[in-house]
Amino acid sequence: MKKFIDSADTLLETSLRGFAAAHADILYLEEQPTFIRRLRRKAGKVAVISGGGSGHEPLHAGFVGTGMLDAACPGQIFTSPTPDQMLAAAEAVDGGAGVLFIVKNYAGDVMNFEMAAELLALPNASVLVSDDAALPKTHGIGRRGVAGTLVVEKIVGAAAEAGLDLAACRALGERAASVTASIGVALSSCTVPALGKPTFHLAEDEMELGVGIHGERGVATQAMAPASEICRQLCDLLAAELQVQTGQAILLHVNGFGATPLVELYAMYQLAADYWRGKQAVVARSLAGNFTTSLDMAGCSITVTLLDDELTRYWDAPVHTAALRW
Amino acid sequence: MKKFIDSADTLLETSLRGFAAAHADILYLEEQPTFIRRLRRKAGKVAVISGGGSGHEPLHAGFVGTGMLDAACPGQIFTSPTPDQMLAAAEAVDGGAGVLFIVKNYAGDVMNFEMAAELLALPNASVLVSDDAALPKTHGIGRRGVAGTLVVEKIVGAAAEAGLDLAACRALGERAASVTASIGVALSSCTVPALGKPTFHLAEDEMELGVGIHGERGVATQAMAPASEICRQLCDLLAAELQVQTGQAILLHVNGFGATPLVELYAMYQLAADYWRGKQAVVARSLAGNFTTSLDMAGCSITVTLLDDELTRYWDAPVHTAALRW
Repeated sequence: MKKFIDSADTLLETSLRGFAAAHADILYLEEQPTFIRRLRRKAGKVAVISGGGSGHEPLHAGFVGTGMLDAACPGQIFTSPTPDQMLAAAEAVDGGAGVLFIVKNYAGDVMNFEMAAELLALPNASVLVSDDAALPKTHGIGRRGVAGTLVVEKIVGAAAEAGLDLAACRALGERAASVTASIGVALSSCTVPALGKPTFHLAEDEMELGVGIHGERGVATQAMAPASEICRQLCDLLAAELQVQTGQAILLHVNGFGATPLVELYAMYQLAADYWRGKQAVVARSLAGNFTTSLDMAGCSITVTLLDDELTRYWDAPVHTAALRW
Repeated sequence: MKKFIDSADTLLETSLRGFAAAHADILYLEEQPTFIRRLRRKAGKVAVISGGGSGHEPLHAGFVGTGMLDAACPGQIFTSPTPDQMLAAAEAVDGGAGVLFIVKNYAGDVMNFEMAAELLALPNASVLVSDDAALPKTHGIGRRGVAGTLVVEKIVGAAAEAGLDLAACRALGERAASVTASIGVALSSCTVPALGKPTFHLAEDEMELGVGIHGERGVATQAMAPASEICRQLCDLLAAELQVQTGQAILLHVNGFGATPLVELYAMYQLAADYWRGKQAVVARSLAGNFTTSLDMAGCSITVTLLDDELTRYWDAPVHTAALRW
């Protein structure tokens, strides 16, 4: 393992301090318990909080700021944050209009956010994101939350900023999540610092379809293929999922897993945009880059959200965070 | 070689089209000859143009937009763009106040930009960036231009946007370049698509000090070390270069080479910020992320610019590009 670290024990803390120092105009870091909070509070709005294991940067802390998250709770790498982090974050950023948790569907995250909600006596405090189309909808613990989480956080964050109440923010988040699907492919494993070696092995002519974002194996190991074939396979899976009608406006998000350079991600974006235009969809909004990563994994995912006027308006609303700004 | 490509021949064209489509609100792509130009022109300002081999994304095309570049000329991967690209870009974006080329110091880039300037009958049309402190100042063809190029482009772009004339923009660019130094380290080689294999080999316990951004070997192959030791070595080299006085304000830029995730880059940023505070410098401005990349190389560089009020003001000025926005 070659990484810029002193030890697996200190990497996250050092990184979070660096992140907070580099973006001191937007956010700051609280420690014991650890969370990142927005610098400029806005009174009377619903507080939107997310969190999850680290190693997916810039998700979630990179989305803290005006128009998106009020706080993010980072767990250790690929490990759920603890209820005391969520509790402290909620108490710190609650502006009187309630708190909404945006939670990726992983057992640990769900359990700990639920525990925090119970301790805060907050019923209906969560939007669950489970956009990973790699797993069947009937999967025992439900589908995982992956790169589509960014879309839900952006839309809910904008709605909260605009003054929607808690029930409306939650309903909007659930609606955004319900029209969002993602599918990923890995060209390499990632290496978790505490483990020190790749979590799975791929041969030089193999790729892994349907990976999540925690270095776990996907649903199938396949022969490596040209970009346009990979793209078609991923988009076919999304098309089977989302029922895209002629003229449907979509948000197309090509997300890198951390070690895939932009030149490849924009090529995948172009191929995916061509695919959806071929399906008579309108690629109305776009995002390409490394946003929901899996440490140093090479690979990418494609996320599609079916847009309507309301979702588009909140997607377009101003956002000022470390990783998303417009 | 595992990459998201159909062929080495089509990767760049597909990627540029995807890039232009994903950022159609900011820029557009001209083909034959190829360049990226800013969508919203501003009359009467100096036109600022850069370019160079591709494979360094988001540099340079990611910096086209309000407050930074008017156009960028992408060559093939790690290959200089041709004079006809620069000529077409200059003719397209010249708003009557002159054209300034920002050129990284590589023989091909320098020659081709000079040729374009001659064809356009533009004397003194370039700012040369040669910030790579890996090579001695006495090096035959001079030092290479690396991640510090972003700093020069930002500052000159802001000055042009503010209405400074050509001579003032050029002088400012040369001044910014003269107080900027960078040094990089690679943990892996990159793989050029047309070559299909890594351009050099590093053992699992080795790193390469003083690499450029074209997959070339650096100045020394060293034993892999903890992040804080690597950081100290890089910063010591910059400190020997820049004569940082007590209380000196600096811009600290930690740049990833493409395959190094943010969690590591922010940790390096934190270690570097501590180093410079230890030298009694004031880390006044910061930027961490993958901005001047070398395809899929793992590694990073540290860039320091000595700031004064004028440089800070232009660094802070609004910018709206694909890769930098504030």
